[in-house]
Amino acid sequence: MKPLLTLAQIADLVSGQLVVEKQGVMIQGVETLANAQACHASFLSNMKYKADLHSTQAGVVLLSHKADIPDDLDAAVITVCNPYVAFALLHRYFHPAPQSTGNIHKSAIVDDSASIAEHVQIDANASIGANVSIGKGSIIGAGCVLEKGVCIGEDCLLHPRVVLEQYTQLGNRVIIQAGAVIGSDGFGFAWTGSEYLKIPQVGRVVIEDDVEVGANTCIDRGAIGDTVIKQGTKLDNLIQVAHNVEIGEHTVIAGQAGIAGSTVIGRGCQLGAQSGVAGHLKLTDGTIVGAKAGVIGDIQEKGMVSGFPAVPHRQWLRASGMFDRLPEIWKKIRKLSDGAK
Amino acid sequence: MKPLLTLAQIADLVSGQLVVEKQGVMIQGVETLANAQACHASFLSNMKYKADLHSTQAGVVLLSHKADIPDDLDAAVITVCNPYVAFALLHRYFHPAPQSTGNIHKSAIVDDSASIAEHVQIDANASIGANVSIGKGSIIGAGCVLEKGVCIGEDCLLHPRVVLEQYTQLGNRVIIQAGAVIGSDGFGFAWTGSEYLKIPQVGRVVIEDDVEVGANTCIDRGAIGDTVIKQGTKLDNLIQVAHNVEIGEHTVIAGQAGIAGSTVIGRGCQLGAQSGVAGHLKLTDGTIVGAKAGVIGDIQEKGMVSGFPAVPHRQWLRASGMFDRLPEIWKKIRKLSDGAK
Amino acid sequence: MKPLLTLAQIADLVSGQLVVEKQGVMIQGVETLANAQACHASFLSNMKYKADLHSTQAGVVLLSHKADIPDDLDAAVITVCNPYVAFALLHRYFHPAPQSTGNIHKSAIVDDSASIAEHVQIDANASIGANVSIGKGSIIGAGCVLEKGVCIGEDCLLHPRVVLEQYTQLGNRVIIQAGAVIGSDGFGFAWTGSEYLKIPQVGRVVIEDDVEVGANTCIDRGAIGDTVIKQGTKLDNLIQVAHNVEIGEHTVIAGQAGIAGSTVIGRGCQLGAQSGVAGHLKLTDGTIVGAKAGVIGDIQEKGMVSGFPAVPHRQWLRASGMFDRLPEIWKKIRKLSDGAK
Repeated sequence: MKPLLTLAQIADLVSGQLVVEKQGVMIQGVETLANAQACHASFLSNMKYKADLHSTQAGVVLLSHKADIPDDLDAAVITVCNPYVAFALLHRYFHPAPQSTGNIHKSAIVDDSASIAEHVQIDANASIGANVSIGKGSIIGAGCVLEKGVCIGEDCLLHPRVVLEQYTQLGNRVIIQAGAVIGSDGFGFAWTGSEYLKIPQVGRVVIEDDVEVGANTCIDRGAIGDTVIKQGTKLDNLIQVAHNVEIGEHTVIAGQAGIAGSTVIGRGCQLGAQSGVAGHLKLTDGTIVGAKAGVIGDIQEKGMVSGFPAVPHRQWLRASGMFDRLPEIWKKIRKLSDGAK
Repeated sequence: MKPLLTLAQIADLVSGQLVVEKQGVMIQGVETLANAQACHASFLSNMKYKADLHSTQAGVVLLSHKADIPDDLDAAVITVCNPYVAFALLHRYFHPAPQSTGNIHKSAIVDDSASIAEHVQIDANASIGANVSIGKGSIIGAGCVLEKGVCIGEDCLLHPRVVLEQYTQLGNRVIIQAGAVIGSDGFGFAWTGSEYLKIPQVGRVVIEDDVEVGANTCIDRGAIGDTVIKQGTKLDNLIQVAHNVEIGEHTVIAGQAGIAGSTVIGRGCQLGAQSGVAGHLKLTDGTIVGAKAGVIGDIQEKGMVSGFPAVPHRQWLRASGMFDRLPEIWKKIRKLSDGAK
Repeated sequence: MKPLLTLAQIADLVSGQLVVEKQGVMIQGVETLANAQACHASFLSNMKYKADLHSTQAGVVLLSHKADIPDDLDAAVITVCNPYVAFALLHRYFHPAPQSTGNIHKSAIVDDSASIAEHVQIDANASIGANVSIGKGSIIGAGCVLEKGVCIGEDCLLHPRVVLEQYTQLGNRVIIQAGAVIGSDGFGFAWTGSEYLKIPQVGRVVIEDDVEVGANTCIDRGAIGDTVIKQGTKLDNLIQVAHNVEIGEHTVIAGQAGIAGSTVIGRGCQLGAQSGVAGHLKLTDGTIVGAKAGVIGDIQEKGMVSGFPAVPHRQWLRASGMFDRLPEIWKKIRKLSDGAK
């Protein structure tokens, strides 16, 4: 349990300004506006929840503009550039990342040839193969399987039942949620005329520093050459990343999205939930793909695309808004055609 | 093996009426109309299979209307209100739910502080963390991981390799299919301008009585506050439920659907396969979302929506039916425009 | 490590013709045109990469037409019918399929009643239930769970953490990627008016020879009767196959596709990524379903369908191309209507 914070300490922690004081407030955690009590900090980041400012019981509220402070607000106020970042910083103070205990559970199977740094935690029934290397401070959750040649950096966190197949590489501070499979065979077969011949998948998956991979997400190893996820990129749950895909730095991909083989996604991109990108494409830096969109061609200009096949977002938005007028359009045209006869 | 049933016993079990007798029929199980033999009961529920009534070898058929009985049917007939419910009841008689053996496998790892009720079954290589509580009659499948503070009610059934992360709560008679991950971190990051800052996810997943969760489905824990699945709700395989989602009672969600963060789904809803619901929305009780639909706004009126963006189902149906006439529409319009010049 | 190959040996292995010689070339593996060095073979199969022929450093290139050879190519050339098949054959020579070590890890739990053939490999923490049968040469990865009555043929390869639930049957040479769940309960419930009654799922999953199943893919057991995947069929990652589905021989299904209950997919079909097929349908042999398509009716004629609801591919392509002209169409019609008044 972390020490309680004064308003001044919070303002300091989040680089904010204490613009409305309140006596005797001591903060022990962060809560939503609706659920906060006097001992909680809260924040306004999504304007959808602005009405909750009037009724919140929070001790202090973080927001970006003095103008957002309602007359009836009975909380201290700290203004910050970005309330969501301020919330993140404060929440992280009260809930620091898990630290390795340095214990290797007696039921864990660790191959003699594995190289385990100091202060690594390996939980129950994990299985560590030949020539695996794990950097200091990393935590390997219960039931994880690290196949031969896997190499993990420092301060990584593998939740339970993660599989890292042969020769998978993780940088430092990588987080893998439970059930993810990294390094499964890519989907590669050659049709001979009578059967599909399996193409051996012998590349690796290489994941750089500060990447997070969601629960039950799958990242296939390359056929030849590697599948690469670059620094700071975040993948949500149940995502499919096919063989030889490359994803640039600081890209975020929402749940159930899929990326087909050999496609290159730029840095700072955002892929929406249930979106898909076809194989052998390039998406430039900063591309935003809308939820459920399907990209079937290269994207050379930064911007947002939506729909399937994906087109510039505004175009899709306008066209979608018309979609359910199709029967009306049809009717009008028939009438006009009849009139024109 | 359950004792065979007479026609009278079956009529009694399913609250039906024996309207066509047949001598000497003893029933040992349920089969489809196509596969049934003299020792099987069968049923007509999906009219798609009505033609199979003529050729079925079943000993007895459950159906809702005498009028459906063909002249050439050589089986006994029991009429019931709802043949599918009758089938369920009869099938459950022959195949009762698995019962705990009360054995804890010697390879299971159970923390000393865990509280395991009487007659709990824990299978091979399961791992039970600190302060876990498991109610009587529950079955924990092979390779399951229950992290610290998990609390499970009575008569639950966890299939193999389920992960329940920290502080997940299950009610009574909850069934979790294999590979599901409950309590993974929600996908929450704040962009600072140079990196994504992970927002600690410290809420729980709370699952009420009689819920079923499908294979490899993921339910994220809340960021602050809980993700809640209410009583009697059924989730299929490979579904994504994001942080702080709330799903009402007796809602059914089909495979590969996804629900984004903080959305509230009402009771008695149905979400189709591969459908998606955006974040921070409310879907009223009884909402039906069509397969592959994408809901991007609140739904305040009970009814069915389809398409993306989702619109009332009939509207979508009419518009979709016109979609492939777009080239024809375009042609007609050009002709008319030319004519108008 | 496999012995290096001469050009003549390669031509022989891939049934090709050495049409451009080069002295002293010895090949130790296959690489992409972009990454190959003098010791590598490469190939041109996807015309997207044709430009790479000019700059490749490969020792030998496999391609289908002499006409594709650029003047400045500094590599030997072997022509073959199908360069992708030739690549597969050569890659398989250098990377033969994993062979069982015949070791059963001391941490594996094997029920006394299980029947394990000679030369079966069972890795750490795998759990083999009652009356399981495993054919010779098969490999069971770390943490796999094989429930009672499972029957596996010869030379199968189960990657880590696969679950085969009760009575699942695998033929010979079946490959299951990590995290897949085979034999989970189908999604079957009968609504009584006040609750969903679970319908016991008591059929099996039957998988024939030479099938491959992707990572975290789910195949549900039949309600009554079996779910069947026929010979030579390949499923990618994160696919949902519902209860009582039947998939014909040599069909390929891409990532995140879903097939609803009791649907029958023919042989030699191709289902695109994120596509879906509704329940109780029949798709004839050779059907191709485009990515993200949703099939809601039987398909009786071989060919490709796309869109949702799926229509013949060409029709969908033409209509999609018009979709973002909807606002323009609307505008023109209003103008024409005004003019007609």
